[in-house]
Amino acid sequence: MQGSHLLAEFFGCQGDDALLTNAAALRKFCLDKVVASGLTIVGESFYQFEPQGATGAVVLAESHLAIHTWPEHSYVSLDIFVCNYTKDNTSKAMLIYEALKAAFQPTQDVLNTIARGEVPTEDAA
Amino acid sequence: MQGSHLLAEFFGCQGDDALLTNAAALRKFCLDKVVASGLTIVGESFYQFEPQGATGAVVLAESHLAIHTWPEHSYVSLDIFVCNYTKDNTSKAMLIYEALKAAFQPTQDVLNTIARGEVPTEDAA
Repeated sequence: MQGSHLLAEFFGCQGDDALLTNAAALRKFCLDKVVASGLTIVGESFYQFEPQGATGAVVLAESHLAIHTWPEHSYVSLDIFVCNYTKDNTSKAMLIYEALKAAFQPTQDVLNTIARGEVPTEDAA
Repeated sequence: MQGSHLLAEFFGCQGDDALLTNAAALRKFCLDKVVASGLTIVGESFYQFEPQGATGAVVLAESHLAIHTWPEHSYVSLDIFVCNYTKDNTSKAMLIYEALKAAFQPTQDVLNTIARGEVPTEDAA
């Protein structure tokens, strides 16, 4: 099994404040974008922090999305992990990433893509 | 906000077969180990694949755990992301990782630790 894992950091978010602060709004946006991407939702859980902040995970047939917001730092962490079991789902993960980046409008961001499920070529401890 | 993200791959799993195949067993094991570590659960969602395979996410006050099993490949992917907002939670994440590794008994494994939330030193596109 091989997969692609996008690890994104959004700094200085200047976009939709509700997505930073309101778990219900963040949940709806994420679920809508996952459905639009063509990935398959098999579960989800979101949580509202007080006084602020939202967090959640969407369990996918293809693996998962996880997102955490820190409104006090205008910072968001985003993970989208898709297995490429029957086909390459990386482009679908990128659609979701681009939609979230456009919504949060970070002034700085980092995107790392990690290959998952690759058997090491030499024995690992 | 800074955090530590453990990305683990377990290959050739020879341990408890129920954890590979049964979502309820995997859920209970993960929740028990998260509680034992001292991290705080604020949500969770697990799903049973047919004919086999289990997947799930635990939403933490400190970020998340996500785990996916492919029994047909004796492979498991594990993510544990902990923010270190008020204190360094990395040792708690490692406790959970070690418990899961001991349970799955992989013949090969890979562990990558990624720092999250670090503002890039130069402007990122």
